[in-house]
Amino acid sequence: MTQPLITPVILSGGAGTRLWPLSLPERPKQLHALSGTSTMLQMTAARVRDSALFTAPVVIASTRHAEPIAAQLAAISVEPLATILEPVGRNTAAAVALAALEGDPDALLLIMPSDHVIGRPDRFLAAVAAGAVQAEQGYLVTFGITPTRAETGYGYILRGAPLGAGAWAVDRFVEKPDRERAEQYLAGGQHDWNGGIFLFRARDMLAGLEVHAPDILAAVRAALAKGRRDLGAVQPDAASFAAVRSQSIDHALLERHERVAVVPVDMDWSDVGSWDALHDIAAKDADGNSRSGEVLAQDSRNCLFHSTGPRIVAAGLEDLIVVATADAVLILPRGQSQRVKELVDRVAPPPARPLSASE
Amino acid sequence: MTQPLITPVILSGGAGTRLWPLSLPERPKQLHALSGTSTMLQMTAARVRDSALFTAPVVIASTRHAEPIAAQLAAISVEPLATILEPVGRNTAAAVALAALEGDPDALLLIMPSDHVIGRPDRFLAAVAAGAVQAEQGYLVTFGITPTRAETGYGYILRGAPLGAGAWAVDRFVEKPDRERAEQYLAGGQHDWNGGIFLFRARDMLAGLEVHAPDILAAVRAALAKGRRDLGAVQPDAASFAAVRSQSIDHALLERHERVAVVPVDMDWSDVGSWDALHDIAAKDADGNSRSGEVLAQDSRNCLFHSTGPRIVAAGLEDLIVVATADAVLILPRGQSQRVKELVDRVAPPPARPLSASE
Repeated sequence: MTQPLITPVILSGGAGTRLWPLSLPERPKQLHALSGTSTMLQMTAARVRDSALFTAPVVIASTRHAEPIAAQLAAISVEPLATILEPVGRNTAAAVALAALEGDPDALLLIMPSDHVIGRPDRFLAAVAAGAVQAEQGYLVTFGITPTRAETGYGYILRGAPLGAGAWAVDRFVEKPDRERAEQYLAGGQHDWNGGIFLFRARDMLAGLEVHAPDILAAVRAALAKGRRDLGAVQPDAASFAAVRSQSIDHALLERHERVAVVPVDMDWSDVGSWDALHDIAAKDADGNSRSGEVLAQDSRNCLFHSTGPRIVAAGLEDLIVVATADAVLILPRGQSQRVKELVDRVAPPPARPLSASE
Repeated sequence: MTQPLITPVILSGGAGTRLWPLSLPERPKQLHALSGTSTMLQMTAARVRDSALFTAPVVIASTRHAEPIAAQLAAISVEPLATILEPVGRNTAAAVALAALEGDPDALLLIMPSDHVIGRPDRFLAAVAAGAVQAEQGYLVTFGITPTRAETGYGYILRGAPLGAGAWAVDRFVEKPDRERAEQYLAGGQHDWNGGIFLFRARDMLAGLEVHAPDILAAVRAALAKGRRDLGAVQPDAASFAAVRSQSIDHALLERHERVAVVPVDMDWSDVGSWDALHDIAAKDADGNSRSGEVLAQDSRNCLFHSTGPRIVAAGLEDLIVVATADAVLILPRGQSQRVKELVDRVAPPPARPLSASE
C-alpha cells in the first residue's frame, strides 16, 4: 500500500508564563531557541519536511505572531501550504476545525503543538506512519507518549484492544491524576501521556465534531465564511471567532468518539514546561551547566544559564536557574521553577483572556 | 581662636573594577548611588557644605567624567570653587599638587576621595576641626580610621607622641600587613587605617613636595603653565601631565615628611571596596536583603540585589550577590566578591593605563 501524503498542522498557540521572562505574550515559547539554535517552531516544521511523506504544513497561529512566524519559517525555507491567523485564541477544537475546513476533506491531518521537543524524531515519524494506517481506516489517532516518571501534570490515555501494527484502541482518557494514581499508571505500563499530537482524516474529524460539538463546528464555519483571505493568510472574522466555544479537541471530540486509536511512542519528548524541564533536556558542559547566550560561568555546577540580553557572569554557583533578558533577570534554585508563575503574577497581572488559540 | 575656612578638595579618580558591572571606566563607583539615593560624589560634597567651616570644593577629576560630575553637583546645588580636569590619571601626589598650585597658598586643603561612605559625618567634621588645629601649625594631617577588623587590604598608621586635642604625631606608615600583623594592630589599639583623607596648608604641602618630590611638583607646574582654562575648568596640558611621575601623596610626601600628624576617627567609614562591603553597610529589609533598583525577591535571605537595568525577580535564594545592568548580570555567593576582578579580566581586558588620577 502506498503511503498517503500527510498534511502537518502546526499549532502555534499559547501565551504561557512558565518560561518567563523569555516567553511573553508577544513572543511565546515556540518562537524561541530554547534547546538549540533553532526555535521550537522551526524544529517542529523541520520534523515533517520529508516530501515523500508530508505536504507543506498548515500553520495556525495568533494574528499577533504572524510576522515572526513567517520570518522563522522562511529562514528554514518552509513555505506553508496555508497560514490561518486567529484573532483570539479559542483552544484546540476550534483550531483543528479551522484546519479541517480550510483544506482537502480527504487529507490526513497531523496536528502538532509547536512547543514540544522530540529528541528522537525518527521514532516520531515511525509512529506517524503507524498512525496513518489507522487514520486511513477512519480512526482518530492520538499519540501516547511513553511515561518516564509519575507525572501529575499531564492527562493519560489507557490502552484498550490492540489494533495491530503498533496501535491500540483507546480504552479511555484520564484527567491529570494524583501522585498515587500516577505511580500506578507508570508501574502498570498500560497508560501513556496525552501529548496533544493527533492524526486523522479531515472528513472524519469534521463528521465527529458534527455529532459531538456541532456548535463549535458551526461557529468556526461562520467565522471562516465572514473571514478574509489576504497577504497569504486566512483570517476568520474576529467577532464571529470570538463567539466560538473554547474547548480542547480532546474534550470536545476524542473523549466522546467511538473510534479513537492510540499509537504509543517513546521519543524523548518534552513539552519544556518549565526551566527545570529545559535543564533536563538541554546539552550540558562538563560541569552540568546548560548555557545559552553570552555566559561566563566559573566554578559553577548544574546550573541553567540562559540569556537573550545582558551577559551572565557567574562564579561559585550550584543548582541555580538564571535567565536574563533585556527586561528582567530571573534567579531561583533548580527544582523550584514551578514558582515562576506566581512570581510573574506579582510582576505583571496576566492578560484577561488567552491570547492565541491552539492549546 | 577663629576657625579658618577650609577648602575641600574632592578627588574623583579611579576606574576600579571591583564593583563591576556597575562601576566602569566611563562611570566609576563615585558616580553611582550605591548606598542610598545620592551618588557617592554627591555624598562627599554634601559632607562639607557648612559654609561656616568650608569654602566651595575644588574638584579634581578625569576629563572624561566632566559632564556627569558637573551635573551631579549641580543637582545638589554645589558650585565648585574650581574644577581641574586631568587628561590622564597620575595618582594622588599629582592631583594634590594641582589643587595646591591652583589655589590660595594659605588655604587649608581637605583632601577627600569621592568614593568613600562615612556613616557618622558628625565625627568626621569633629576630626577635621581637630586636624585644622595641627594644620594651622604646619603639620600635614592624615585621618586615621579606627580599625574594625584585621584588614589586610589597607595601609596602617602607627601613632607616635600625642600632640593634644585628639591628634598624634605619626610614628610611621605601615604597608598592607599580613593577617598576623593585622591581628596585632587591631589588638594593640595604636594603629589606624590610612583612608587617604588629608588636611594641610597648601603652602606647607608644596614646600614638602619641593624637598621630597621636586620632579612631580615641577612637572605639574609645567603642565598647568601650558594648560587651558575654559568652560569653567582648568585643564593641564595633556602631554606635559602625562609625563608626571605617578605616585601617591602618601609615598611621595607624607611617609618622608618630618611633621605629619594623625587624627584618629571612628566614623563608620567604608571604601565600599567590594559588593560584600556594600552589603555590609547597606540598609536591609527584614530578611537581610539589600535592594536597589527594581527587585522582587520572594523567600530570599541575606542577599544583595542591585539593578540599574533589568528587573531582578528572585525566589528561594540565600547569601547571594546579584548585580544587573543593561549589559551584564553578575551572580556569585556572598563572601566571594573578591572574585569580581578575575571575572572582569576574563570578560574584558583591563585598560592599558589608569584612566584618571586621584588614587
